[in-house]
Amino acid sequence: MKVHWQSVAIVGVGLIGGSIGKAIKARRLADRIVGVSRSAASADDARRSGAVTAAGTDLAAAVATADLVVVAAGVAAIPDLLDEIDAAVEPGTLIIDAGSTKTRIVSAWERRRRSRRGRFVGGHPLAGSHRRGPDAADGNLFAGRIAIVTPAARTPPGDIADAGGFWAALGATVFVMSPKEHDRILAVTSHAPHMIAAAVAAATPPALRRFTAGGWRDATRIAAGDPDLWADIILDNPGNVADALRRVAGETEKMLAAIEAGDRRRLVAVLRRGKEARDAVGS
Amino acid sequence: MKVHWQSVAIVGVGLIGGSIGKAIKARRLADRIVGVSRSAASADDARRSGAVTAAGTDLAAAVATADLVVVAAGVAAIPDLLDEIDAAVEPGTLIIDAGSTKTRIVSAWERRRRSRRGRFVGGHPLAGSHRRGPDAADGNLFAGRIAIVTPAARTPPGDIADAGGFWAALGATVFVMSPKEHDRILAVTSHAPHMIAAAVAAATPPALRRFTAGGWRDATRIAAGDPDLWADIILDNPGNVADALRRVAGETEKMLAAIEAGDRRRLVAVLRRGKEARDAVGS
Repeated sequence: MKVHWQSVAIVGVGLIGGSIGKAIKARRLADRIVGVSRSAASADDARRSGAVTAAGTDLAAAVATADLVVVAAGVAAIPDLLDEIDAAVEPGTLIIDAGSTKTRIVSAWERRRRSRRGRFVGGHPLAGSHRRGPDAADGNLFAGRIAIVTPAARTPPGDIADAGGFWAALGATVFVMSPKEHDRILAVTSHAPHMIAAAVAAATPPALRRFTAGGWRDATRIAAGDPDLWADIILDNPGNVADALRRVAGETEKMLAAIEAGDRRRLVAVLRRGKEARDAVGS
Repeated sequence: MKVHWQSVAIVGVGLIGGSIGKAIKARRLADRIVGVSRSAASADDARRSGAVTAAGTDLAAAVATADLVVVAAGVAAIPDLLDEIDAAVEPGTLIIDAGSTKTRIVSAWERRRRSRRGRFVGGHPLAGSHRRGPDAADGNLFAGRIAIVTPAARTPPGDIADAGGFWAALGATVFVMSPKEHDRILAVTSHAPHMIAAAVAAATPPALRRFTAGGWRDATRIAAGDPDLWADIILDNPGNVADALRRVAGETEKMLAAIEAGDRRRLVAVLRRGKEARDAVGS
């Protein structure tokens, strides 16, 4: 299991990519950290924020000399980025990603596994923020959090260990599971809650916004996330998200039935199950 | 408009009652603050926490010498408490409450308006916490927040001014509206979001709880609230809460339809409306 790299290329230097850069730097896990962005302005932002030691817009040049490539882009862009990266890396280079969905990304890589130069292992650190950009990046974003590594059936154990070792070196607790299992779980714990938060916010008429308090603000905070990035995540995991949304809708239906019947006992029962789940997770 | 009281009785010394006591004390708005609780242990807690200058379990004795009575109990208990308080106060004593619903409470008072000794004006400070008890109380809980005062049609303007003046003296911005309008608004901004948060938490199986991150935690935080107190709030405002829940369900249905059709444009549109609402409210 490798825990030190000579040169890490981070493709996408927003909040997640920037936080990965800062974490690598703070923990001295690499000699060189090169940020890659589509725009020169974002590359400059990343360099100025201290998240990377160098930055530019030339993807092929940046990954050609890297022994680790981390893809921290929106999920819709990742499959094509992996192809582009794979064409430019030295054979045997470890490539990992941090996308919020995994099945489509891992399948896209696996379809051409035999002709790949790099070794790809998908992953997803369960950490984030509704804030954006490298200035909001935080080198401790992954410390004490969970990172899920999602190998394909044919991924060699050594590659899984290298990818898991990277996330562990950033302070995360690492879980290994299939891409399908990851997407099934995250639909429930992240993707559907995001949609529900947006639904609550969208259902609040402008004139009533001033009468919101801490509860509404907590419940809707994630709705501030980027609509385009989130639409891509949802549409990458549509069946699981639809199932999870229907499960929440089922709980809401039970509540509505209890309210309409004036059935306090049934209403308390649902609220108690919610409280029990929330208390079990902690702050 | 009266802004100093000789003796304030606070009936119910949990988080809200305790915070009111601490706010009165910090702002020197009264010479004496007497806490009243059903249990001697809670009364002791309140005195020890510094939220009140004296505390006990004898409601009639505590309110008999008060020139202001603040009822900070669960909504289900308030109508009977108002009757009990009114029977013991000096004629003309101002009585206010901090309950999360208003129509049933104000109506119950108004039905016997002609025989009342005290002057009741319902109210609701839009501040709170999922924490409980006088030790979690905060004298600044109401500063910069909104307090809604909900007079009945026949409430004299001077009484409205006295009640509003009290909440303003605690640092709140005061809005005056009818109890019905209050309940219609709060169903959307507080009661339904609470139910939805509980539904999201309840729909998360125990085995998946470890895979939650900041988004889930924010979205479900209020689900940690007391199920009995919240069931009473919801059942005090059933029609409005059901309407608000259906409105959120309608947004969720639009999302489901967009997901199932793979319609990115429609999905982004709902997410954008959610983000716009969330961004408008601020952190």
